[in-house]
Order: sequence, then C-alpha cells, then structure tokens
Amino acid sequence: MPQQTTQAVPPGPGPSALPVSEPRDTNSVTDAPFLRAARGEPAGVTPVWFMRQAGRYMAEYRAIREHHTLLEICARPQLAAEVTLQPVEHIGVDAAILFADILLPLVPLGLSLEFTAGEGPALHNPIRTAADVAALRPVDAETDLGHVLEAVRLVRRELAGRVPLIGFAGAPFTVASYAIEGGSSRHFVETKRMMYGAPEVWHALLGKLSTVLADYLAGQIRAGAQAVQLFDSWVGTLAPDDYRAYVLPHTRAIFDRLRPLGVPMTHFGVGTSGLLELQREAGGDVIGLDWTIPLDAGWARVPDRAVQGNLDPIALFAPLPELKRRVHDVLARAAGRPGHIFNLGHGIVPETPVDHVRAVVEMVHEATAGGTT
Amino acid sequence: MPQQTTQAVPPGPGPSALPVSEPRDTNSVTDAPFLRAARGEPAGVTPVWFMRQAGRYMAEYRAIREHHTLLEICARPQLAAEVTLQPVEHIGVDAAILFADILLPLVPLGLSLEFTAGEGPALHNPIRTAADVAALRPVDAETDLGHVLEAVRLVRRELAGRVPLIGFAGAPFTVASYAIEGGSSRHFVETKRMMYGAPEVWHALLGKLSTVLADYLAGQIRAGAQAVQLFDSWVGTLAPDDYRAYVLPHTRAIFDRLRPLGVPMTHFGVGTSGLLELQREAGGDVIGLDWTIPLDAGWARVPDRAVQGNLDPIALFAPLPELKRRVHDVLARAAGRPGHIFNLGHGIVPETPVDHVRAVVEMVHEATAGGTT
Repeated sequence: MPQQTTQAVPPGPGPSALPVSEPRDTNSVTDAPFLRAARGEPAGVTPVWFMRQAGRYMAEYRAIREHHTLLEICARPQLAAEVTLQPVEHIGVDAAILFADILLPLVPLGLSLEFTAGEGPALHNPIRTAADVAALRPVDAETDLGHVLEAVRLVRRELAGRVPLIGFAGAPFTVASYAIEGGSSRHFVETKRMMYGAPEVWHALLGKLSTVLADYLAGQIRAGAQAVQLFDSWVGTLAPDDYRAYVLPHTRAIFDRLRPLGVPMTHFGVGTSGLLELQREAGGDVIGLDWTIPLDAGWARVPDRAVQGNLDPIALFAPLPELKRRVHDVLARAAGRPGHIFNLGHGIVPETPVDHVRAVVEMVHEATAGGTT
Repeated sequence: MPQQTTQAVPPGPGPSALPVSEPRDTNSVTDAPFLRAARGEPAGVTPVWFMRQAGRYMAEYRAIREHHTLLEICARPQLAAEVTLQPVEHIGVDAAILFADILLPLVPLGLSLEFTAGEGPALHNPIRTAADVAALRPVDAETDLGHVLEAVRLVRRELAGRVPLIGFAGAPFTVASYAIEGGSSRHFVETKRMMYGAPEVWHALLGKLSTVLADYLAGQIRAGAQAVQLFDSWVGTLAPDDYRAYVLPHTRAIFDRLRPLGVPMTHFGVGTSGLLELQREAGGDVIGLDWTIPLDAGWARVPDRAVQGNLDPIALFAPLPELKRRVHDVLARAAGRPGHIFNLGHGIVPETPVDHVRAVVEMVHEATAGGTT
C-alpha cells in the first residue's frame, strides 16, 4: 500500500517572459567532448556523465525534494532547471541532462499520473483496449509540454555554454509498458497480453506514442537541447523477434523524424545484450551498453556507432581502489577509440556515495586527457 | 509495509513411519523422456514441465494455500508432497519438481525467514559482515532439512514411477543475495557492496553456502530425486568477469560434488545471455535458457549440453493460436535435436490461465511424438 501520496500538480505558467539569449560560446559547445564523442570524433578526453545524475544521492537535490514533489519540480521550469544544473556544478560532469520524467507526455494524452512514495509511478486509468487508445487526446508538445521546453530554455541560458544539454524521452515500448500496466511492472503481463493478443491495438497505441514522443523531442531540440537520449529502459524483457515485430518500427519512426534536426541521438536500454543489432537498426548515433556485456564486446556488435557506458552503478559503492580498477577496465576496453562516452550501465541509485561519483569524473578525465578518444 | 505476516513454522515431525518402497517401474522412469532428454538422448517425445508448475495459477494449489502458509507447506512433508503432485495430475507434465523454497537452507544456518504477503521473503538478520558469516551454524542436511527429504520420499512413493522427480536448490549467488539483502532486491546494492568491497567475506559466505547447498542436494538425491536443478535466478545482474571471479568457483563446487551421484543436473538463470559459456563451465548437463535469446542461438553457445526452455512465461496469456505459434517456434529452433526439454524461460506467474498451461503440454507432445527428439 502507498505510504504517502503525491498528487500530480498541473504544469506551471507557460513560457517565461524572460528573454532567452543564445549561449555566447556556441562554438565551444559544438566542440564539447560529449558532442564530439557522440559524433564519433576524437574528443581530447573521454566525456563522462551519469544517468540520474540529478537525484537523491545529492544533498542539494534532497534539499529541494524536502519542499517539492517530483512532479512539482517537473512542472516548474525554474525548479527543473535548478535541479538539472546541480550535477554540473557539484559533480563536474561533461553534460547536463534535463530533469524530467519519461511519463510526463502521458499526462496530456489523458492519463492520470501520480508518484507514490516507495511505490513509484501510478497511472490510474491504464490503457487496455482499442477504445482506450482511441480516447487518447491529441497532444501539442509546444503548449501541452511547454513547461518542459521552458526548462530547456532556462537551462541553456544558465549553462551559458559550459557543457551541452541532453534532452530525453522514454521510448514507445517503455512508456507504453507504464501506460498499460498502470505503473512499474515486473513481468509486463498486461503489456505482453496486448502485444501478443491484440497486435492491432498495440500498434495503434505505439503509433500514437511514437508521434507524441517525436514531437516532444523535436520541441526539446528546438528549445535548445543539443543532444537527445531515448530511454527504452525495460525493452530487455523482449525476445529479438518480438522486438523486431512490435517495437522496432515505432522506435525507428522517432529516430527518422529527428535525424534531420542534426543533433546526436542516444539509444539506451537495460538487459539488451540480445537486442543490440536491432537497436542499432532502429536508430541512434550512440548505443547505450549496460554492464552485463563487456564494453568491447558490445561495441563490436554496433561497430559503426558511438557507445555509452558501462560501469555497474553499484560499483560506485566499492572502495576507491576497486572503483578505480573498474573505471580503468571500462576505459581499457574502449581502447582509446573515438566515440566512447563514459557512463553507468543504468541510473545512479539513491544511496550512492556522492564523493565516489565525483571521483569517477576525475578518474575518467585523468586517465584520458590528451589521449586519442 | 507488509499487509499480512506469515510466521515461519518449525519443521514438522521427522521422517514418516510409513514404509517407503522403491517405485515398481524403475526402468520406465530411467527411460522417461525427461531423463533421456536431460542426458542428451533421443526421448521419443519432447518432455515438458514448467518452473513454478505448482503454484497459485492452479485452483488445487490455491485451495491448500487457503489453509496453509507457504512455509507450512514446505515444513510438512505430506502437504509438500501433495502440492508437488498437483501439476502431474492436473496438467500432465513430464516431471514433478519438489515443492520447496530456495531459502529453506538459510533457516538452519541461523537466519530468520518469513514470507510477507505481497512483499515476498524477509530475512530479519541479514548477513553483512565477517562476524555474521562466522556465526552461521553448521548444517546437517539429513536432520536440519529432513522435512524436505521426507517430502522427496513421499513424492517418489506417490508418483510410483509415473514421471521423474526433480530436486532443486538455489545457487550460491542467488541464495546469498537474499541472505545479504534481507529479501528480494532490485539493484543488489548490499550484495555487490560485499562482493566488490570485501571479497574475503564474500568468498567465505559463498564457500559455506556452497557446502550446505551441495549437502542438501545430495540428500535430495539419496532420498530419491532423479534429477536436480540449481536455480541461479538473479545471476544475470553480473558482468561476466564478476561471475567468473566471485560466483563460478562456488557453483562449480556444487556440480563437482554431485556429479558422482549420477543424476542429470540443470543449471538455470534469467537474463544470462552474457554468461552462458561461463555457466556451462561451472557445470550442468542441462543449461536453462530464457526467452530473450532464441533457443537455437543459445544452444549453439553450449553445444555439448542439453538445453531447457524457453517460452516467454507471458506467452501463456496469448490467445491459443498465437500461443501455439510460439510453442512451435521454440520447437522449430530445437529442430528435433535430442536434448531439448521444453519449459518456460522463467516461472509461471500467478494469473496464468491454467487451460493454456495444459494446452502447451498437449501442443508439445502432439508436435513431437514419434519424432527424433
């Protein structure tokens, strides 16, 4: 049972009246190690950032969460921008990633979203039938998700060219799994029941999600996101044939829509050892690798792409010498080849010691500065 | 918060006074399709059983659970035997698997185990330090786990040679993860913290677990189990190098200990696409494959072993024609090669329609009877 309930709050006021100037040093950002590596170019140093780098492991984030729910932060551009910038200022990462939640686009589609303490997201009117899919509302990302786009503009202004800003969205499968299950899931029973039993409903839903998610990411790019990442976090639960039939076309539609916008795109999932070639086929300039596949073995399977990863997030709990050994092992497997972005294989967990996160940034920079990556 | 608490109950009375006779038709069991396939021999038909085949999806099981907790059933040999036999009688599977829980051996080691409704197992004195490992009590499987061995004897007698009985245990990593975390885990923070940060404590713990688990499985075999399966359900969370360093020696010790006892042994895990070669190296006549790797691709990586799997458990929710298509796809990938045991890639989930489980048994038998498998 939920111990505490956090009601969803409506989005804050529309786009801020404050003037948004272009960052002064556009060129230096274009040449930023993260963007160079994402394009597969030598970057001078291996860039490093962390999935969930703005999160509960940081005292500065916890201080804000004492006064605001997760959805409040997402709904208020000033708060979202402040939280987005925290790891840039306190951890020294090479990229900012917009603070938001992959489920936000479900709200204008008509789903009732809340986050319950300890239980995660809850969607009170899950999508189960063709009628549910037909009833989804049309979404105009510029207005319906304008608070997120405004946060992008604010972050770009505040960053002033220090590091690039990554925008993101959930991928159609992963977002659909929450929308269908009504929250997190262990076995994806309802998701697969629709996929295997009512494929026409499934494809109608994923088609709609794919359009909304592509619009949303295009909006983020227009607002200033200099790269985007598509999180297909739970797609590792699928057999390759099912990925190909039920997911790949919808994910590919997003990458195809965004490619002309000219920013690097990362395609990420967990437990995707069996899907890497198909994820590459769906799209992405950068393929995310988790820690269950050695970085060199994973890269060999998507050889024409950049890769991102792949330290075990729980390695951050190891004593520093062991943590360093593991960081260096990842770097050794990248072997100085251009196109490696250092990251974890999944998000930072809340109990992670913050000084170890900072230490990894230093380890990666120290080991690779002046190198060939 | 737990909504309901099930106290662990002490084991029931010792070995039953009832005489246990050898099954009358020992030969026919030795020739049973399950045992033939497990040895890699042509079996005349592809044998089929299901992980968690005795469980809440069956009305007969739910009827018993109305009056008894899970630990009560495990502690009382008559109840455990009755539940073990239900799927043989009502589903028509080609093997029985002992009804028990992988955490039972932790109780005589000194851990306080209970199952809480909706929350799963809870161990109230988790193992975190060298002192905790040193304080683990010596275990005599024959007496301390005698109630389980008695259930094995009862099942053998009741089966009277109809189908073979599979004994099982958790593998050292998976059992250790519960013992260290104090229950189920998502990120295995404490488990990996010990593994990466205090390897001497880790190896001491896994050494003790490996001895107890091997004794326990040897006891099951002596009591009449005609095959055994080692469940390393959560080992897929490890990178291959970590599996090799921290897990493989302890798992191999169990297979090495049991090999002279001459029964087929199955080695199972979930999400182990990256570990199959190392699992093979650790041991097992049969390697379990989950549905995220096509059966033929998985088998090609452990070519000298039999394989078990690998239908997606959620495929059981699909309409019968789609379910049949998926069953036939698995069989087509096995390609009539001897040494395939049909199963799911993981356990049956509670909401599964029982008639679809029965239908799969029929589909597999109908498609393969008289064939070369």
